[in-house]
Amino acid sequence: MKTVIIGGVAGGMSAATRLRRLDEEATIVVFERGGYVSFANCGLPYFVGGVITERSSLLLQTPDGLAARFRLDVRIRHDVSAIDRVNRTVRVTDLSSGTTFDEPYDRLILATGAAAGDLEGAAGAPTFSLRTIDDIDHITATIDAVGTTATAPASAIVIGAGFIGLEAVENLRRRGVQVTLVQRGPQVFSPLDPEMASPVLRELVAHGIDVRLNTTVASATAEGLLLSDGSLVRADLVIDASGVHPQSELAAAAGLALGESGGIVVDEFQRTNDPDVYAVGDGVLKVDSLDGGDTLVTMAGLANRHGRAAADSIAGTPHPAAPALGTAIVGVFDLTVALTGWSESRLVAANRSHRVIHTHPASHASYYPGAEQMAMKLLVDPDTDRILGAQIVGGQGVDKRIDVIAVAMTAGITASGLKDLELAYAPQYGSAKDPINQIGYVADNLHSGLGRNIQWHELEQAREAGTVLIDVRTSAEFSAGHIPGALNLPIDELRERLDELPLTSLIVHCQVGQRGHTAARMLVQHGFDARNLDGGYLTWRAGIASVAGPALQG
Amino acid sequence: MKTVIIGGVAGGMSAATRLRRLDEEATIVVFERGGYVSFANCGLPYFVGGVITERSSLLLQTPDGLAARFRLDVRIRHDVSAIDRVNRTVRVTDLSSGTTFDEPYDRLILATGAAAGDLEGAAGAPTFSLRTIDDIDHITATIDAVGTTATAPASAIVIGAGFIGLEAVENLRRRGVQVTLVQRGPQVFSPLDPEMASPVLRELVAHGIDVRLNTTVASATAEGLLLSDGSLVRADLVIDASGVHPQSELAAAAGLALGESGGIVVDEFQRTNDPDVYAVGDGVLKVDSLDGGDTLVTMAGLANRHGRAAADSIAGTPHPAAPALGTAIVGVFDLTVALTGWSESRLVAANRSHRVIHTHPASHASYYPGAEQMAMKLLVDPDTDRILGAQIVGGQGVDKRIDVIAVAMTAGITASGLKDLELAYAPQYGSAKDPINQIGYVADNLHSGLGRNIQWHELEQAREAGTVLIDVRTSAEFSAGHIPGALNLPIDELRERLDELPLTSLIVHCQVGQRGHTAARMLVQHGFDARNLDGGYLTWRAGIASVAGPALQG
Repeated sequence: MKTVIIGGVAGGMSAATRLRRLDEEATIVVFERGGYVSFANCGLPYFVGGVITERSSLLLQTPDGLAARFRLDVRIRHDVSAIDRVNRTVRVTDLSSGTTFDEPYDRLILATGAAAGDLEGAAGAPTFSLRTIDDIDHITATIDAVGTTATAPASAIVIGAGFIGLEAVENLRRRGVQVTLVQRGPQVFSPLDPEMASPVLRELVAHGIDVRLNTTVASATAEGLLLSDGSLVRADLVIDASGVHPQSELAAAAGLALGESGGIVVDEFQRTNDPDVYAVGDGVLKVDSLDGGDTLVTMAGLANRHGRAAADSIAGTPHPAAPALGTAIVGVFDLTVALTGWSESRLVAANRSHRVIHTHPASHASYYPGAEQMAMKLLVDPDTDRILGAQIVGGQGVDKRIDVIAVAMTAGITASGLKDLELAYAPQYGSAKDPINQIGYVADNLHSGLGRNIQWHELEQAREAGTVLIDVRTSAEFSAGHIPGALNLPIDELRERLDELPLTSLIVHCQVGQRGHTAARMLVQHGFDARNLDGGYLTWRAGIASVAGPALQG
Repeated sequence: MKTVIIGGVAGGMSAATRLRRLDEEATIVVFERGGYVSFANCGLPYFVGGVITERSSLLLQTPDGLAARFRLDVRIRHDVSAIDRVNRTVRVTDLSSGTTFDEPYDRLILATGAAAGDLEGAAGAPTFSLRTIDDIDHITATIDAVGTTATAPASAIVIGAGFIGLEAVENLRRRGVQVTLVQRGPQVFSPLDPEMASPVLRELVAHGIDVRLNTTVASATAEGLLLSDGSLVRADLVIDASGVHPQSELAAAAGLALGESGGIVVDEFQRTNDPDVYAVGDGVLKVDSLDGGDTLVTMAGLANRHGRAAADSIAGTPHPAAPALGTAIVGVFDLTVALTGWSESRLVAANRSHRVIHTHPASHASYYPGAEQMAMKLLVDPDTDRILGAQIVGGQGVDKRIDVIAVAMTAGITASGLKDLELAYAPQYGSAKDPINQIGYVADNLHSGLGRNIQWHELEQAREAGTVLIDVRTSAEFSAGHIPGALNLPIDELRERLDELPLTSLIVHCQVGQRGHTAARMLVQHGFDARNLDGGYLTWRAGIASVAGPALQG
C-alpha cells in the first residue's frame, strides 16, 4: 500500500513516522513545496529575535535522515498542483528541475496547513509571512540590511495582534526594531475578553510598541504605508500576520468538502468525504468540545495528534479523535497569556448562559520571593456548573494553571470541583490553596448560592438604579486609587459601623474579591442586600482600561 | 452555638474563618499552644536558609486581626490538656499566667497536627524540630552563635531524608553549614522508587552533603554523635525530621478512635466517633484514593480543605471529602521532585499488578533555550489502563506535569488518555507533543500491544536467559558510556544490517526509550522477538546508581 502525504512539518511528519512504525512494508512518499520538510515552525519568531541563535537548531529532520530511520521517500521543493481522485494520482512539479509528473497513491494525506494575510495591501515595503524558514531568512536579511545603511533603527509594521503577530512584535523589538502594530479590531489578541486583553495592551505599550487598534493598512505610498486612521507610517518591512486561513485550495479543486472559513471537512478518523483521502493539521476543521460544531484551531499539538490518528486509520487501527478545546498560550514580553475553551464574548454571541469569575492570585506563596500576580477568568455554566472556558494572564505559573483547567474540562470536572483538586504544593511552586482551588472555592460559593457577584461592566447600570458601592479596602489602598463615588469602609471596621450603611442594595468590593466576599457574607447575614464586585478593583480597572484603549496605557 | 478549635495554622484557621463566613452569630474560640496562630509553616526552612529574609512575612494573621475581621476569640499560648466529652468541656492552661480553666463547647475541632522525631537519641547537641516559629528562632540563633565563636563553619546533622529533612539540608547548606544527612533506610526520600531517588542523592552529594544511608544515630558522646555505621560526627545542632507522626495523644486520652500510625479516625465529613468532635489536618487519617484504605498524608492543602469541610459540616451544609491522592512536591537544590498516587514499591508490597513507564522528556521544546531534561515515571494498571501513580524529577515544568497527572487521576483519565490531553503549547512552555502526551503515547503503545517493554531491574535475568542487548544509539553515544556487553547497532543502520542480528530474543535500547521503540517496532515486523528497555540507558543508569548508593555519586 502506498501513501502519499502532501506537506511536511507537524501533521505530515507525524503521520509519516507513525505509519512506518505501524507498517514496515508501506510505501510512504512526502511532497513538500518548501526547502525543509521538518522544522520548528513555532520557533521561527524567536530566531528572528535572536533568542534562538542557531538556525540549524530549527531544522529537525532532513530527507536523508528520514530515509535512514523511517524509510520515507521525502521530496522537498515539490509542489502538488492537483489531485485526480478518480485515478488516484497527484500532479507534482519538481520546483528545482521544473519537470511535472503524476504520482499514484492508494491513500492520500493532505497536510497543507494554514496561511496568514493576503500580503498585498502592504505592497510598498517588503512584506512577509512568518511561517517558513524562507520567511525568517528574508526578515533577518532585511533588518540586517537596514542596520548597515541607515542611521535610524529599522522599523516594521506588524499586521494582526494574534498569536504570530504578538510573537513577531516581541521579537522584532528584541532586535531593536521600531514596531507599529496594526490591529483591525478594538483590542489586541481577540481570543481574550477585553478586560483580560487590557494588561496585554499595557505590556505592549510599556515596551515601546505603537499599537493602533481599529485600524487597517489603507494603501502604500512612496513615503510609507497609509493607515486607515489617516497616519503615514514608514516601515522597512511588514509582517502580515492577519487573517489566518486554511490552505485548502488544492482540496477544493479536487471537490473535497470544505466548511467554515474554508477548512477541510474530516470525520473523527481524519477522513475527508473521499474515503481514500485524509487531511490533518491547520487546514482542517476540528470538532468543538463545547458545542460539537466545526471549529478552526491552528495548533501544533492537534496537528501532531491528528497526523498520528490518520496513520492509525490507514494502518487499520482507527481511533476517533477527541474534540478540540482550543487550549493555547503565547508569551508577550514578560507576560504569559493562556486560554482554553470559549471566551465570554463568544458565549454572549452564541447566547449561551454563563457565569463569570475573576481572581488575581499569586503564582506561589506570597511570602516566598518571586511570586507574581496573575489574572484568572473562568466561564461557568450556571445550571450545570460545567467549566466553559478560562483565560489567564500573568507571569510564572500561568501555563500550569491553564493546563490543569484544560484537563478538568476534558474530564468533566465542574467549576466547584476545582476546589478539591489535590495539586502539588511547596511555597516556591504554589499555595496550599492553589489558584485553581481558590477559583473553585469562588465557583462553589456562587453555585451554592452563598455568594452573589456582579461584573465590572454591570456596575454603572446598577449604580444608576440606586445601588451603593462600598470599598472595603484599607484607607491607604483607597487613597492609592479607587472607583469614583465608592464609599470607603474598611472590612476590619465594617462589623462595628453597620449603622453607617444605607439600607439600599449594596455592592461591596476589595482589591481582588476575597475580602469583598467576606464582607458580603457578613452584610447579608446582618440583613443587607449585598453583592460582591467580581475580581475587585483590579478587574474593574482592567475593564475600564480596555474601553479606553492605548491612550490610557501611556 | 459555640465551636472550640484546638490548634491554629492551616486546618484550624481554615475551619474558623469559613465558619464565620457561614455563621455570623457563632461563637468561635481557638486555643493555640504556641505563640503564633497563623504562620507559614511551609516557609520555615526557607527562613533558616535566608531565602525568606523577613521573619514577619511568615506571620500571616494575628489574634487582633482575626478578631477584627472574623470576630474570632483566638488565645495563643493556651494549652489544651484534656477533653471531657461527657460534659463537653476542654481543660485549658494559660501558659503565660499558669492558670487552668474548663472551656465548654457545643462542637469541637481538633487541629493538633503532626510531629517529627523523638528528639531524644540526639541529645548531646541542641536538637530541634522544624515546625514552629520557635524552632527557626532557635536554629538560626544556634548557627549565628557558632558563626561568631568558631573558626570552622557550623555543622549539623539532619535526621530523616523526607520532605522536611531535605528542605532542612538545602537551607542549612545555603547558610554555609556543613551537613550530614542520616537516613535510616537504603535511599533518600522514600516516597520515590529507588531509581527515581537516585538523581536526588546525586544532587545532595554534588552540593557537599555527607549522606549516610542505612544509618541511625546510636548515641551521643562529648565529641559528637555516634552513628550506627560506627562513625563519630561532630554537630553544632541536630534537626530531627524523622518519623513524622500524628499528635493524637489528646484525642486518644479522650477515647476518640485512632487508626493506622495513631491517626485520628474521621468520617467523610471530618467527624470523629463523637458526633460533636471533628478533626482535621496532619493528625487525621485520610481515605486513600486508590484502595479506599486509611492513609496518612500530611499536606497543607488537605488540611485547609478539611478545615473548610469541618466548618461546612458544623454549619449544617456538609459535603463529603474527596479521597487523598498524596500529591506532593519538594525542591532539593536545583532539582524539583514531585509525586502523586502510589509508588512501584508500594504496589509491589501490596501485590498489585502494575505496568511501569519511564520517560526523559525536555521541559519545553529543545530548540528553545533553557530546556531541562526531566525523568518521569508512570505506574499503570495493566488491565484497566488506570493511572496508579507518577513520579517526576527534574527542573522547570515538573510541578506542571505532576499537577496534570494528579487531575487526570482524580478524573479517571486513563494512561493512554494522556496522549489526547490538549495542553498549552508554545516553545518556551512545552512541546507540541508535551511530556504528558508523550508518556500517554508510550502507555497507549503498551496497552494496545504495539510495544513491549522490559525494566532496568529485569535486564540481568533476561540476559542470563540468553537474551541479547542491542544499543541502537550512535557510536558516539555508545562510546560515551554504555551497558556492559551491549551490542552497538545504530538505528539508522539497523534496517540494512538485520542479518547481523542473532535469532535469539532481543532487547533494544537507546538513550531514553524513543528510538528503542522505533527499533523494536522495526525488528518485530521483520520477524524478531524484540522488547524495548523502558526509559533507555538513562533509567538503567539511575537504577544501577540506586543500588550502588552514595559511593558512586562522588
